[in-house]
Amino acid sequence: MSDRFLRACRREPVDCTPVWFMRQAGRYLPEYQEVRAGHGILEVCKTPALAVEVTLQPVRRFAVDAAIIFADILLPLEPMGLEVSFAAGEGPVIANPVRTAADIAALGAVRPADDLGFVLESLAQARSALAGEVPLIGFAGAPFTLASYAVEGGGSRNYIETKRLMYTDPEAWHDLMGRLADAVAAFLLAQVAAGAEAVQLFDSWVGALSPDDYAEYAHPYTQRIFAALAGCGVPRIHFGTGATTLLPLMADAGCDVVGLDWRVPLDEGWESVGYKKAIQGNLDPVVLFAPEPEIERRVLDVVKRADGRPGHVFNLGHGVLPGTPPEAVGFVADLVHRATRRSP
Amino acid sequence: MSDRFLRACRREPVDCTPVWFMRQAGRYLPEYQEVRAGHGILEVCKTPALAVEVTLQPVRRFAVDAAIIFADILLPLEPMGLEVSFAAGEGPVIANPVRTAADIAALGAVRPADDLGFVLESLAQARSALAGEVPLIGFAGAPFTLASYAVEGGGSRNYIETKRLMYTDPEAWHDLMGRLADAVAAFLLAQVAAGAEAVQLFDSWVGALSPDDYAEYAHPYTQRIFAALAGCGVPRIHFGTGATTLLPLMADAGCDVVGLDWRVPLDEGWESVGYKKAIQGNLDPVVLFAPEPEIERRVLDVVKRADGRPGHVFNLGHGVLPGTPPEAVGFVADLVHRATRRSP
Repeated sequence: MSDRFLRACRREPVDCTPVWFMRQAGRYLPEYQEVRAGHGILEVCKTPALAVEVTLQPVRRFAVDAAIIFADILLPLEPMGLEVSFAAGEGPVIANPVRTAADIAALGAVRPADDLGFVLESLAQARSALAGEVPLIGFAGAPFTLASYAVEGGGSRNYIETKRLMYTDPEAWHDLMGRLADAVAAFLLAQVAAGAEAVQLFDSWVGALSPDDYAEYAHPYTQRIFAALAGCGVPRIHFGTGATTLLPLMADAGCDVVGLDWRVPLDEGWESVGYKKAIQGNLDPVVLFAPEPEIERRVLDVVKRADGRPGHVFNLGHGVLPGTPPEAVGFVADLVHRATRRSP
Repeated sequence: MSDRFLRACRREPVDCTPVWFMRQAGRYLPEYQEVRAGHGILEVCKTPALAVEVTLQPVRRFAVDAAIIFADILLPLEPMGLEVSFAAGEGPVIANPVRTAADIAALGAVRPADDLGFVLESLAQARSALAGEVPLIGFAGAPFTLASYAVEGGGSRNYIETKRLMYTDPEAWHDLMGRLADAVAAFLLAQVAAGAEAVQLFDSWVGALSPDDYAEYAHPYTQRIFAALAGCGVPRIHFGTGATTLLPLMADAGCDVVGLDWRVPLDEGWESVGYKKAIQGNLDPVVLFAPEPEIERRVLDVVKRADGRPGHVFNLGHGVLPGTPPEAVGFVADLVHRATRRSP
């Protein structure tokens, strides 16, 4: 039974630095690929037995200090009326993206118990299967990142349609973001009720925004979500990439832990966020493709920058990439524990 | 005859803030599309009459204060032995990417006059055709950005192969970067000799690196290039995107002007770079898709953050995007001039 992840989120002293990996359940694991061989990604998400199986895979294999439920950030878009699919080897596609105020007004609300009950069921089953071995993290996409998929119809390089909507019809934009914030807040609250012991809000693509745009068009909605979660009793993690200039605002949104990518050194990022927040990160995921001595050098650098201050959760700066050698993930987990072990 | 661009690069007082646009000659212009209808992009680059024509198009249409030669950053890779092509509607593809020390050792050197004479000829012809109306900018890709294409075989999201080479065979990496730096330095010097009155080094994708990786694996090579250009008498502009945490190092590389993207407010970026450098930027290119009052509000914000300090060149934070309304480009150029006009 490891509670060091939850303790670190609360900035309490720990026996050693906790570690988990974004996308630790994923394509780089052969046992995950075996499951996926017979089932599409949305099918795995919607079948609790499969979702629980892939959630547990990295916990069985590695000394990670948390499990994260297997799901996809786009799941709440489906009950809102968006047609989400995943082409083989490609990113998600939304067949009917929203581009106008009318499109947005026609979106449905999300009732988590009815619409996303499979995620809640997966959480309950995974929590039970974990039997307290490590805590279970729930998650959702943040409104900006979800909006970017909903408006672009998939992944994007320049976010032209997303920002065009934001700049040309701010009222429609705010309507969309309000709907997404309400859906996400309700979904995360339901995840906590179902068994999630921490929640992470993924604003993966928010780094496309300038600080002023973030403040005006995104920040109020992450604030709304974290405010809704204020009394829920579990740590709230807020993560983005390429978001160095947004960190003070992201920290201010009401979270307990801020996730950093590798573009900012961990010590500078923590200073920017403020020491009243815990910090999560921030090894470049591509480092896991390097030889062990190079991985070790870089892991120790991250650990050193945390400077023994309570409140560091070791993680990558983004998800584990497809093709990552699984043994590198295990090596990092063990190394972080070994290098940060405190005398009892 | 406008010399305000060159004066601003040297941080001298100007009658009003100069403005040009990265990719001002490009797909958003109908007259460019007409030229491209009959010719591939590499063919336009290699045919001086066509390259000069598209270089001049934005100068004819808009009140821009500089022309930039039409070319592609990947051109020097061809004489090195890489097979570059552009699939319709897609980015560049390199059929024989370099992945090993042996691949890199087999790369050829670049002799600009022989291998890239068409760019030099285009510069000479464009300079002559401009007849001093506005200065002419030459450019090249920076070693990291070129290496990322050479190693990945095209554009990339995560730069796995590029960083894998960097982390697993640093000697081969440094060999590659040294070759690219030598090629780029020679090419830029030849561009100046041929008529370029300023040069810009595009390190568009360098924001994928952590500051430590930048310092070790990229910075020495941009330094080498700018050192080679030190006595050449023309302003040297250094540009990257997503590079907020790299700005102090990029400024230190030996350039005269640092280009900012929109992720950092211009005043904060300039402070980070230091006031001994001029600054270029930094409107989000997607703002050009907004209605005029919104464009105006944002242009004036950039101008205000420059605070009347000599040494601001107005530009976007990245290139003009395909689909941009041409009239928005003209609106911004005129607005920048009008809003910053000093009394004589």
